[in-house]
Amino acid sequence: MRIAEVVGRVTLSRSVHSLRGGRLVVLRPMTLEALTEGSPGRGEELVAYDNLGAGPGALVGLSEGREAANPFGKTKTPVDAFCACLLDRLSF
Amino acid sequence: MRIAEVVGRVTLSRSVHSLRGGRLVVLRPMTLEALTEGSPGRGEELVAYDNLGAGPGALVGLSEGREAANPFGKTKTPVDAFCACLLDRLSF
Amino acid sequence: MRIAEVVGRVTLSRSVHSLRGGRLVVLRPMTLEALTEGSPGRGEELVAYDNLGAGPGALVGLSEGREAANPFGKTKTPVDAFCACLLDRLSF
Amino acid sequence: MRIAEVVGRVTLSRSVHSLRGGRLVVLRPMTLEALTEGSPGRGEELVAYDNLGAGPGALVGLSEGREAANPFGKTKTPVDAFCACLLDRLSF
Amino acid sequence: MRIAEVVGRVTLSRSVHSLRGGRLVVLRPMTLEALTEGSPGRGEELVAYDNLGAGPGALVGLSEGREAANPFGKTKTPVDAFCACLLDRLSF
Repeated sequence: MRIAEVVGRVTLSRSVHSLRGGRLVVLRPMTLEALTEGSPGRGEELVAYDNLGAGPGALVGLSEGREAANPFGKTKTPVDAFCACLLDRLSF
Repeated sequence: MRIAEVVGRVTLSRSVHSLRGGRLVVLRPMTLEALTEGSPGRGEELVAYDNLGAGPGALVGLSEGREAANPFGKTKTPVDAFCACLLDRLSF
Repeated sequence: MRIAEVVGRVTLSRSVHSLRGGRLVVLRPMTLEALTEGSPGRGEELVAYDNLGAGPGALVGLSEGREAANPFGKTKTPVDAFCACLLDRLSF
Repeated sequence: MRIAEVVGRVTLSRSVHSLRGGRLVVLRPMTLEALTEGSPGRGEELVAYDNLGAGPGALVGLSEGREAANPFGKTKTPVDAFCACLLDRLSF
Repeated sequence: MRIAEVVGRVTLSRSVHSLRGGRLVVLRPMTLEALTEGSPGRGEELVAYDNLGAGPGALVGLSEGREAANPFGKTKTPVDAFCACLLDRLSF
């Protein structure tokens, strides 16, 4: 999982059916260097599905690719990015 | 999902059978910085399948990889990029 | 799918069994900017499976990852790049 | 698999259920050049699941994507990075 | 598949069970430009599974992602990189 910070939210107009009702957040992937120095990261933001209630500024583990769709079980969904966990503390 | 802007369309001559009848658009992935400043983004355009009717200039959530093929159900298809949703409003 | 140009062919000596008999081409991913200006692209060439008969100089839609193996059905194959369609015309 | 060095650990507050009880480490992908010269690598750190007991400073083979979830069997899990092996010796 | 050169080997100490007995090589992805000019490539080396007997200096087709695990059949394995073929001759 990449380390990412929650930087915004998304409002949808039209989407494929399986995404309706979901909560989407805008995430910015971060490096340890960016976290330590407070620099803004690389700016390649992603839209991800969240069901952990990650608020603005929270650090999350960003799971990407096919496995991001796993928690949805057998429902076909085009989700490829998912907040897998809230990172409480990084020690390095 | 990456954030992308619809910048063009594609006309196919030959394709694998499962792609026939589909609508393909050219997408340019965008960062929040590019969206805010009106800069052109990084220019690594992709061809994606669209069934939401995304028009030129629209912002979409671009789903990539195996899960992009999910909405097609059991039909074998080589699609690896899919317009999953129209982004109505990004708040950040 | 990434936009790519056919730039060469590959002759195999040894391969896993499921690849024998296939036709492999060398593809160079392109951006719209490179196509418009005639610049050479980024040079990160790939070897891809082709059954559309894509000739040198043709533009193809390059499907990558697990879904690239879909057209092969149930045969186990390590193919991760596949010419999904010949791009006849890009309008942007 | 990418070559990566263990540089830290993660403490979780909330996570999807299938991740609970697991051990997560922070990995920094390395190149052979970085390993030879002792340079710090590129700094695009990842959070990965570990059940090999990889300690700080250890070099591991980092497996990414859907196959990273394979060792978990049929349990649905959003893990997309996994310490597949401890690299005892690299000869090059 | 990416084009890669075999640059080394790996000796494992501990690994997940499904990797034991396998042969792992260190691969360096190459571009056509690097091959033509004899330049060293980009240096983002990977560890890959090999059962074709690829020796040092050989050029291989590097298959990545979930499909890399296909030749292993039903055994769960975290392999995400696999030597799919020895490239005998590239014509471009």
